[in-house]
Amino acid sequence: MDAENTDDFWMVSMRVLCVPLHKFPPCFCCSSVFLAFKTPKLLVMQNTPPVWNELLERLSEVADLRGAGALAHWDQATLLPPGSASGRGRMLGTLSKLAHERFTDARVRDLLDQNEAFAREQHEAGDSFPLQLLTTTRRDFDKATRVPSEFEARFASHCAQIYNVWEEARRESNFGKVAPLLEKTLDLSRELASFFPHEHLADPLIDSSDAGETVASVRAVFHPLREALVPLVREVIERPLASDAPLRGHFSLAAQGAFATEAIRAIGYDFSRGRMDFSAHPFMTSFALDDVRITIRGEENEWGELFFSAMHEAGHALYEQNIDPRFEATPLASGASSGVHESQSRLWENLVARSPAFWSGFFPRVQEAFPSLRDVSQANFLAAINRVKRSLIRTDADELTYNLHVLIRFDLELEMLEGKLAVRDLPDAWNARYKSDLGLDVPDDARGCLQDVHWFSGTIGGAFQGYTLGNILAAQLFETAQNDLGDLNSHFARGEFGPLREWMTSHIYRFGASLLPRDLIVRATGRPLELAPYLAYLKGKFAA
Amino acid sequence: MDAENTDDFWMVSMRVLCVPLHKFPPCFCCSSVFLAFKTPKLLVMQNTPPVWNELLERLSEVADLRGAGALAHWDQATLLPPGSASGRGRMLGTLSKLAHERFTDARVRDLLDQNEAFAREQHEAGDSFPLQLLTTTRRDFDKATRVPSEFEARFASHCAQIYNVWEEARRESNFGKVAPLLEKTLDLSRELASFFPHEHLADPLIDSSDAGETVASVRAVFHPLREALVPLVREVIERPLASDAPLRGHFSLAAQGAFATEAIRAIGYDFSRGRMDFSAHPFMTSFALDDVRITIRGEENEWGELFFSAMHEAGHALYEQNIDPRFEATPLASGASSGVHESQSRLWENLVARSPAFWSGFFPRVQEAFPSLRDVSQANFLAAINRVKRSLIRTDADELTYNLHVLIRFDLELEMLEGKLAVRDLPDAWNARYKSDLGLDVPDDARGCLQDVHWFSGTIGGAFQGYTLGNILAAQLFETAQNDLGDLNSHFARGEFGPLREWMTSHIYRFGASLLPRDLIVRATGRPLELAPYLAYLKGKFAA
Repeated sequence: MDAENTDDFWMVSMRVLCVPLHKFPPCFCCSSVFLAFKTPKLLVMQNTPPVWNELLERLSEVADLRGAGALAHWDQATLLPPGSASGRGRMLGTLSKLAHERFTDARVRDLLDQNEAFAREQHEAGDSFPLQLLTTTRRDFDKATRVPSEFEARFASHCAQIYNVWEEARRESNFGKVAPLLEKTLDLSRELASFFPHEHLADPLIDSSDAGETVASVRAVFHPLREALVPLVREVIERPLASDAPLRGHFSLAAQGAFATEAIRAIGYDFSRGRMDFSAHPFMTSFALDDVRITIRGEENEWGELFFSAMHEAGHALYEQNIDPRFEATPLASGASSGVHESQSRLWENLVARSPAFWSGFFPRVQEAFPSLRDVSQANFLAAINRVKRSLIRTDADELTYNLHVLIRFDLELEMLEGKLAVRDLPDAWNARYKSDLGLDVPDDARGCLQDVHWFSGTIGGAFQGYTLGNILAAQLFETAQNDLGDLNSHFARGEFGPLREWMTSHIYRFGASLLPRDLIVRATGRPLELAPYLAYLKGKFAA
Repeated sequence: MDAENTDDFWMVSMRVLCVPLHKFPPCFCCSSVFLAFKTPKLLVMQNTPPVWNELLERLSEVADLRGAGALAHWDQATLLPPGSASGRGRMLGTLSKLAHERFTDARVRDLLDQNEAFAREQHEAGDSFPLQLLTTTRRDFDKATRVPSEFEARFASHCAQIYNVWEEARRESNFGKVAPLLEKTLDLSRELASFFPHEHLADPLIDSSDAGETVASVRAVFHPLREALVPLVREVIERPLASDAPLRGHFSLAAQGAFATEAIRAIGYDFSRGRMDFSAHPFMTSFALDDVRITIRGEENEWGELFFSAMHEAGHALYEQNIDPRFEATPLASGASSGVHESQSRLWENLVARSPAFWSGFFPRVQEAFPSLRDVSQANFLAAINRVKRSLIRTDADELTYNLHVLIRFDLELEMLEGKLAVRDLPDAWNARYKSDLGLDVPDDARGCLQDVHWFSGTIGGAFQGYTLGNILAAQLFETAQNDLGDLNSHFARGEFGPLREWMTSHIYRFGASLLPRDLIVRATGRPLELAPYLAYLKGKFAA
């Protein structure tokens, strides 16, 4: 409690906390020192109009409320005491509600309008930041305000209900139990879509996480992907299954964590502005551009999950850590879309960290760190981390078959939205597709259409396409980077990841959410999203 | 990123986080599931008027914003990556500002007025909660709104400035460098006091952390305390200094942490609703009544600091963990005052954990955990943890001399406020008091009047009295509990702390901030704060 003799500024706050923060006025003395000390100057331009400053201030408040919510989530996933869930739930609700209120306030619309002329002026004078900020913010504002709050409340209440019933239904493998509620989800998903202009009902739902994409644009790549993938998977699984024995044994979590730390540091994850912790389910989160954290999970009796979850999340984190700092605390300070974000996690996890070149550098290190791998050949290790084995469960799937799981869900949700597939017929349709695409018999709905939470906690439509869009884009970006930088494999073999990361920074990361994914991709690769590089990659890797 | 196959509800949120939270509308789907799932019902009464519900809702928002700020502080003190300070500072500023705005809004005043009749009605029907809530909230609201925001901004800006200069001045031991700014602090402290009714200028400053106390009421116990303490200290330090050799050696932090965990669990700290972590400076903080955390610090080459910081902070935490759950998310959900809070940290740290009875139970355990203590006698161990040694630095002081440091500061700040002591004469006055009260020569201002951050980051007046009020109150409460419960020492010797903790819960903790400290003390002990039990305790322990 007597913590004041210190050179650390932050201790000033301790005193406030020491006398309990909830009680004493937060406006006097020490806590206001904070404000004055640490509120950074957001304004990077001279002589900006007051309404511009007000807009930045407002957006910064919203960003901080969301950042605080993200911190509260992170803490919950990593450290929260078991008996603290109730208070935490309320805090998360409050932060989310206030962020929404502050962002959708009519004043924001005024500020957007009143800054239009200033932004165009700056644009003509060579600074596109204000105009990009207005454009992106207007798009977000529009999305956030088109939906009546009456609908939101109704939808939230439905989601709460179906989520609980789904948990039971999945436990009992009883689709019938949740089917009536899923029909209501379908109605609500259609109603939600109806608040937005659209050609296909799923367009607005897709747009909410993959801005600018539509059913038509996604189908244009997904259909040919399926045409190519189904026979490729069939071909690969007819070969003898690679052994995963090298990855079984005892691998202490401490050693696995240390090795993952070394690897993600090597690809450029900046630990001075981030952390890696354990959680039940891996994720990346950021509270500000200078605080981008990842979580991992792993088991002592298996080598792989911890390492690849670290590489995956570090891929997401590289993106956020390298966004233009000028975008801090605005809607531009995030990834461009779900698909573009996923392209980075997949690129670093799969195209880099499952490649022979990567392991020609790291294999001696992994052998050094884990004695049981010393008797394993590099070829067998590579085969084990890349083995293809059909599975019923999406989240267990390997790099090659994963997309088939996504395509099945994407197609079925469109059919439901279009009225071509009745909810009650979902299990049959699901099982038929697992048979035709993966050659698997689904034994029960728990391992079938009840496995994913998505439809049972949100809309039908829009939640799955990003995973596969990301895989496709990763290959296109990798190919372009390789054309620009020369043989990336020889870099990887030497442990050099800087050139690829810097290429991604200058072509993708730094732009944050300032460009639509479509424009970003054309700018980075010279052409729109296309399937060819991904198919070439998969065939080169798996059809050999 | 694929974290959906789970029985853990909270994973629903992960998906939102996985696609970066900053980007996508927080109002759809999963994030709204949250609101519906987890917003607990705050309303504990049937058929409450809508304005009552609105008041609870508003207070809950403020509590959650403060709780989120406290979490952001805690994370900063325990885990924050070194490069993340800027974003965190902004987040803290935003949360503090919004909490203040939401609380001081004119609507809160309306809600207080409109609920008056309802609260009186409930009170007459036997439920005093609504009326207590109105009373405490009105008091806090009044304090928070009397100060013009123009003044707050001016004061915050001054605090930022003087804090930076103080850091340099302390490093250089150059009081002259910061003296002009300290004069301005004095003016601002007087101005702040002027916004409140008062007899003495320091009254409102004291009241802000020790509600209901005044210069007169504090002096009434502090003067006789000094009269008794100065000769007692003189007597004690003339005896041979106890050896602290038993506490020197190598004590791994892991073993110290495990032992502290065992001890605070024994006194009743509930780890299912809290955590203990390391930080540069120990503190207790709470984000909700079900999430009350403590931090500790320690060194491997010394036994004591870690253990006693844990007991101290656990004392604070026992208080907050045992507040009536009905007070959750209201201004009642905190301690009654700085002094009452401190009484609990001091009680568990000093009256319990430095007592012979405590160690008659725990000494075998500490010997088991730390081999080097096996050759130490219990008497020598007790002498070492209770040794009295005058020091120049308040935060290094032992239990007996600590209060003299506080009394010096309290007297000098009143003299400055009264205009009897010029700021430029502070070092001389300080040094004279250290000589007369502690018999020490102050070699430089760094180890003199520049040592504490309080005057250099907040007001002159009001920051110190709580420490000593807490010590005095601790003895009075302990004595009363002992009268009620019988021989507490025999409980402690058997490792039984439940009776004392439950007595504190029923007499102090559960009331939270629903009563003024004065009323709380009379209710708990049958009389106002008095010095006799504390002097008896000190004499019994140290004058022997």
